[in-house]
Amino acid sequence: MNTKTVKIGLVGYGTVGTGVAKILFDNADAITKRTGLKLELACVVDKDITSPRKYQLPEGMLTDELGVLLEDASINIALELVGGTTFAKDLHLKLLRSGKHVVTANKALLAEHGPELFREALDAGRCIAFEASCCGGIPIVAALQTGLAANQIQALYGIFNGTCNYILTHMTQHGAAFSDVLKEAQDKGFAEADPTLDINGMDTAHKLAILAGLAFNCKIGMKDICVEGIENVDIADVRNALEMGYILKLLAIGEKDADGRISLRVHPAFISEHTPLARVDGPFNAVSVFGNAVGNVMLYGRGAGMMATASAVVADIIDIAMGNSQPLFENLVMAHEVKRSAMFKPMDELTSRFYIRIMAKDEPGVFAKYSYVLGEHKISISGAIQHEWTGPDNTVPVVITTHPTQQKNITAALLELEQLDVISGKPVCIRIVDIPEDK
Amino acid sequence: MNTKTVKIGLVGYGTVGTGVAKILFDNADAITKRTGLKLELACVVDKDITSPRKYQLPEGMLTDELGVLLEDASINIALELVGGTTFAKDLHLKLLRSGKHVVTANKALLAEHGPELFREALDAGRCIAFEASCCGGIPIVAALQTGLAANQIQALYGIFNGTCNYILTHMTQHGAAFSDVLKEAQDKGFAEADPTLDINGMDTAHKLAILAGLAFNCKIGMKDICVEGIENVDIADVRNALEMGYILKLLAIGEKDADGRISLRVHPAFISEHTPLARVDGPFNAVSVFGNAVGNVMLYGRGAGMMATASAVVADIIDIAMGNSQPLFENLVMAHEVKRSAMFKPMDELTSRFYIRIMAKDEPGVFAKYSYVLGEHKISISGAIQHEWTGPDNTVPVVITTHPTQQKNITAALLELEQLDVISGKPVCIRIVDIPEDK
Repeated sequence: MNTKTVKIGLVGYGTVGTGVAKILFDNADAITKRTGLKLELACVVDKDITSPRKYQLPEGMLTDELGVLLEDASINIALELVGGTTFAKDLHLKLLRSGKHVVTANKALLAEHGPELFREALDAGRCIAFEASCCGGIPIVAALQTGLAANQIQALYGIFNGTCNYILTHMTQHGAAFSDVLKEAQDKGFAEADPTLDINGMDTAHKLAILAGLAFNCKIGMKDICVEGIENVDIADVRNALEMGYILKLLAIGEKDADGRISLRVHPAFISEHTPLARVDGPFNAVSVFGNAVGNVMLYGRGAGMMATASAVVADIIDIAMGNSQPLFENLVMAHEVKRSAMFKPMDELTSRFYIRIMAKDEPGVFAKYSYVLGEHKISISGAIQHEWTGPDNTVPVVITTHPTQQKNITAALLELEQLDVISGKPVCIRIVDIPEDK
Repeated sequence: MNTKTVKIGLVGYGTVGTGVAKILFDNADAITKRTGLKLELACVVDKDITSPRKYQLPEGMLTDELGVLLEDASINIALELVGGTTFAKDLHLKLLRSGKHVVTANKALLAEHGPELFREALDAGRCIAFEASCCGGIPIVAALQTGLAANQIQALYGIFNGTCNYILTHMTQHGAAFSDVLKEAQDKGFAEADPTLDINGMDTAHKLAILAGLAFNCKIGMKDICVEGIENVDIADVRNALEMGYILKLLAIGEKDADGRISLRVHPAFISEHTPLARVDGPFNAVSVFGNAVGNVMLYGRGAGMMATASAVVADIIDIAMGNSQPLFENLVMAHEVKRSAMFKPMDELTSRFYIRIMAKDEPGVFAKYSYVLGEHKISISGAIQHEWTGPDNTVPVVITTHPTQQKNITAALLELEQLDVISGKPVCIRIVDIPEDK
């Protein structure tokens, strides 16, 4: 067999970088056998060249001089594994301008500066590959770009954040409160010391921006996505979900309606316990894609971690080295630059079902009062639960689920409910997302 | 944007062929936008050019003359969608020799004559693409060849046959007997009039031969696979599975052990109700792949049907037209032709847990007798159920699950159990497959 040698430079020898080096050395023979490529790690750049790492590089490979990589014209592919958006952006530009293709796992960078960097890559005749930026080792970018390329994508639903899913799974299975589970997750290393970007939904939104851009073939900005996190999820709502046959998940949703308008959102959602996404537990991620030919295809796997993410980085190296990435990338960028009216649907016009929980006074006539408010806003009740139990201040928790209605109706109704003297505190409202078996 | 026109010839205008034509016309704009390719269906060959079809082709496109396709040098890609292994094999040879790449959905042909056809394609400088041969629209061939290419694959577990999975799901959820569900499935069109190849496991084995060949990068013949079907599955065993927290599935299994020996088998299996594969219901298919870097990745979707399979055919057309398939294909064939000792593990040496159901006499000392037999064969009991109920001839069903033991121990023990006078009839034995979260 003829083999082709491909030289690689890595910037950022942290967790993922270490995993990539491990794969390039440990799986070298298997990769050559499958692809005919000999992937040669030529240099690793990191500002820290002294701390011990989990994978020991050959003597002299680790350097703190970026120039070693930039000036070596024999290195064709560079890996940006530093994270962040400031230094990383500058690094992308330098790498591209020195003639290297770039592989990145940096979703925040792409979600915020993707179009600019893509344009720069195109001008340099190079590509940016980003399988590792979304859902760790799950080959979802490739699936959207090639495996499902025959389809018009109608919708995608995803669980994109392992920290949130670990927390919600733990709350569901053990009945523990959010703050307790978060603390436990931090102690066990499943959540960062500062988990803000995870639990506020922004990390999920970054990935949705990238994947929905591929799925619907349009340029998506963070402002086009409605984002709500899980920081206010109450264990009571997790329990109520279970009682009604739902599971509470932080869902990323991209849907195209009959008029071609795209709805993009990240928020806690009740989904049927029978839908495959409901069974995605713990730190795992999954994406359900609906194509007009293929129907529902779901991909499932580890969404983060050293080796899973490194697996995606190396897949991108292989794709670039085989010449498969460049034509797809060029087409992607050019398709995104065509002037088009990719209309994003305002949240107010979203049609959904809703779960509402209120603390109502346990008195005659109360049910009539709040159900009247719902009726006035054209909201039809689909289910209700009031257990025979009275809480503080003679109030009782009441749970209502609705038939499909527009977001603006619910928003108006909630404001009015909050004013009712028979209701104590702020009503809780969570969207119920009905994921079909097929579209 | 520059577009490249690619002319396509289709042979076999049946269900899948009709779906392919529909995608090529209906999704043409979306495909061009995503890939820059203009896919042009140039001719459709079928022996029947008069019967009405679900998708009406433009006047003059349908012909019964294969020569129209073979002699048109401008047609670069041909689709073989006729099925069967005799005419189809000859057709592949003709298409390859006339200089065309071939896309096929024909798993039986590839499982039986793949190596010969692959060699022929290589000699002709063409490729055979076969995403559609396994699991309909699920992009599993692409995942194994590219998305997970950084990994050494350790195992794959799959539900590859929609008919079997529909039947087993229906038995599990409704407690109905095999023969009743099969008849209902036939009436509803979920099972063929002659479902032999589905229910005897051969269709699943064909797909396993192809996918395990890709996963483990070696040539696999049908003789290397142990195949058992679901024709003898009793509703009692489905119920017992549920009681013990398992779901009964027809599983395709490919596992590599620490010595590099490969175990390939298709058989009914008890799998934990908590494993994602257990939740794959009805006609859906799924494949769980374990890579040494990525861990467990599962792909899920419709494993058959006009449009799902057509989606995979068109994905292959796109991959060939972009030039991505040929290098991977050449490498695949050459890797398979390297002399190597791909050792297949004999079934006798398989280590597994087992479920055994016997009809035992309801008398003193009986439990001791059959548990003595198991102990003599070094089989350790992990669980047992004997409900307080007596059946015909004063017998009672007893269910035993074992700790891991070798197949040969179980086979010997079953023969001995069958001879015991306190046991009535033949013991039932089903393997329990423990699919880990990660390997």
